[in-house]
Amino acid sequence: MKVTVTTALTTATLVFACGLMGTAHAQTQAAAAASQPPAPPPAAVSGPQALLDASPASHWRRLDPQYTLYMDLPQGRVVIELAPSFAPAHVANMQIFAREGYWSGLEIIRAQDNFVVQWGDAGEDLPGEPHKPHGSARSKLRAEFEKSSDWLRDNGHPFVALPDSDGWADEVGFVDGFPAARDKRYGLTWLAHCYGMVGAGRDNAPDSSTGAQLYAVTGQSPRMLDRNITLVGRVVQGMEILSSIKRGPPPMGFYTDKAERTPILSARLAEQLPASERVHLEILRTDSPTFMQLIEMRRNRNDGWTVRPAGHIDLCNVTVPTRTARAQ
Amino acid sequence: MKVTVTTALTTATLVFACGLMGTAHAQTQAAAAASQPPAPPPAAVSGPQALLDASPASHWRRLDPQYTLYMDLPQGRVVIELAPSFAPAHVANMQIFAREGYWSGLEIIRAQDNFVVQWGDAGEDLPGEPHKPHGSARSKLRAEFEKSSDWLRDNGHPFVALPDSDGWADEVGFVDGFPAARDKRYGLTWLAHCYGMVGAGRDNAPDSSTGAQLYAVTGQSPRMLDRNITLVGRVVQGMEILSSIKRGPPPMGFYTDKAERTPILSARLAEQLPASERVHLEILRTDSPTFMQLIEMRRNRNDGWTVRPAGHIDLCNVTVPTRTARAQ
Repeated sequence: MKVTVTTALTTATLVFACGLMGTAHAQTQAAAAASQPPAPPPAAVSGPQALLDASPASHWRRLDPQYTLYMDLPQGRVVIELAPSFAPAHVANMQIFAREGYWSGLEIIRAQDNFVVQWGDAGEDLPGEPHKPHGSARSKLRAEFEKSSDWLRDNGHPFVALPDSDGWADEVGFVDGFPAARDKRYGLTWLAHCYGMVGAGRDNAPDSSTGAQLYAVTGQSPRMLDRNITLVGRVVQGMEILSSIKRGPPPMGFYTDKAERTPILSARLAEQLPASERVHLEILRTDSPTFMQLIEMRRNRNDGWTVRPAGHIDLCNVTVPTRTARAQ
Repeated sequence: MKVTVTTALTTATLVFACGLMGTAHAQTQAAAAASQPPAPPPAAVSGPQALLDASPASHWRRLDPQYTLYMDLPQGRVVIELAPSFAPAHVANMQIFAREGYWSGLEIIRAQDNFVVQWGDAGEDLPGEPHKPHGSARSKLRAEFEKSSDWLRDNGHPFVALPDSDGWADEVGFVDGFPAARDKRYGLTWLAHCYGMVGAGRDNAPDSSTGAQLYAVTGQSPRMLDRNITLVGRVVQGMEILSSIKRGPPPMGFYTDKAERTPILSARLAEQLPASERVHLEILRTDSPTFMQLIEMRRNRNDGWTVRPAGHIDLCNVTVPTRTARAQ
């Protein structure tokens, strides 16, 4: 049992707050209403945001335009970082789909509550709807469920382990910004189905995915899917768009009313757009000391609100900070 | 490491499917498109739905109208089962709020992505907005973060433990349909912050919640809140309404544009409505053999899609089945 008891502290650092009710104070910079306890005095610069603000530029990285997918929806842009180190064949196919405009004009065809949204060609699943040709993309790929841990380490993709226990795997942590898990005995590493992870839909055959039809996790992390389907990347901006899309009918959320599907205006690699039309993001390096300090702040919160810090964090409760890039 | 390897099987039982892409077949009863592997033959009646269909009536229970809260929104009805065995003071206050129509005309004031939606009186947090009086409800309650495990057992609320490990607590399981966790050394049990759980917002003081302002978990289970705030119940119907509400501005999702708030048309106990206007639901008893069999089916999926069953399930990945009640 890792739970430790501490007394509440008087400093409040609420930028990453999980506080409820009183936290509106931090957002509005307003005083508490009369019936509420008075707000604490402004906090010393000691919380997660201060840590990030003080972090060196070398702890951040920019997205690679050839491995960054923009999916533009009527509600705004969803930015997906691809994971070529884990799913090279799927990512290569997805680059072809993007360059050939495959997804443009297709739709979000499924939104199952507390699970996933899924997009692509409705005609792949639903007879009677037109089936869009896949162009130059390969029609058959190998399943890319896991990688050799040694290969990842030897090729510049080290595993940064968390000390926290996990029910699904021997060890969990991060590789290149992606949540991941490992089997020590067999020396295997795989991406983990946390919120915002993007995978390639497949049929019953393990090698039936092509990267044409994709899903993003919008609910409680379905880690039972780990090692059962190929994950290809992670949404780094715009999850609030995907997560708030109206759910389709139960049990699985495929829209039967076509009017409820969300159209994909375009889905292109960042490199296909001029610099002026790109989103310039920086992601905190998950192999940086800042990231580990940040996780420790979440594991043992000292925010003026938490009475009993958990002393633990689950892999999928860790958020990797993203910010707008500073001037180049 | 609990992962075991099995070969894919040929039967498909997809009602609770986590399958992706090919699962549209199950919903549409349609054949696969030409480019996809053929759909498997119709499955033998052997999956989760068949288990539920065959379960005796005694494995199900109905909601108690005095402890069932209906929150009616423009999008539909949200049904919340209250937890008087864990939070008797808060639930008693909430019954007063409901009977006196406190929430009617108030709003959903916050939607933070991958965390919570929160509702109540914006005037409690935001100065310059009117503050609605609390009527006969008590203005000060004790914090109800945890209960004696012995008291729960001796008063007809047994803990049904899962064998699965958990990073946040010694033991996890269910009490009366609610996800819960225990500390063995101190003999304490508490409700767990899984998807759909409802809690009472508080300020920095642990005993500053009254049940007037509430939140529901819409994202990855924020278990770090366990034992830090009073949970009062669980959404048993209508989560897809709360989860798809447009998010408010970061970082905490409190709406600054009042027009984005969702109005609460009414929030009443089931007992306040005539039977003809109630929702008649049955919940699978979490102390029934059927529930344990269902969890085992999820832990080791044999659905024709899963290649590598996890051999594990996290507490918050367990869904408690709900169905429309049969004729009385």
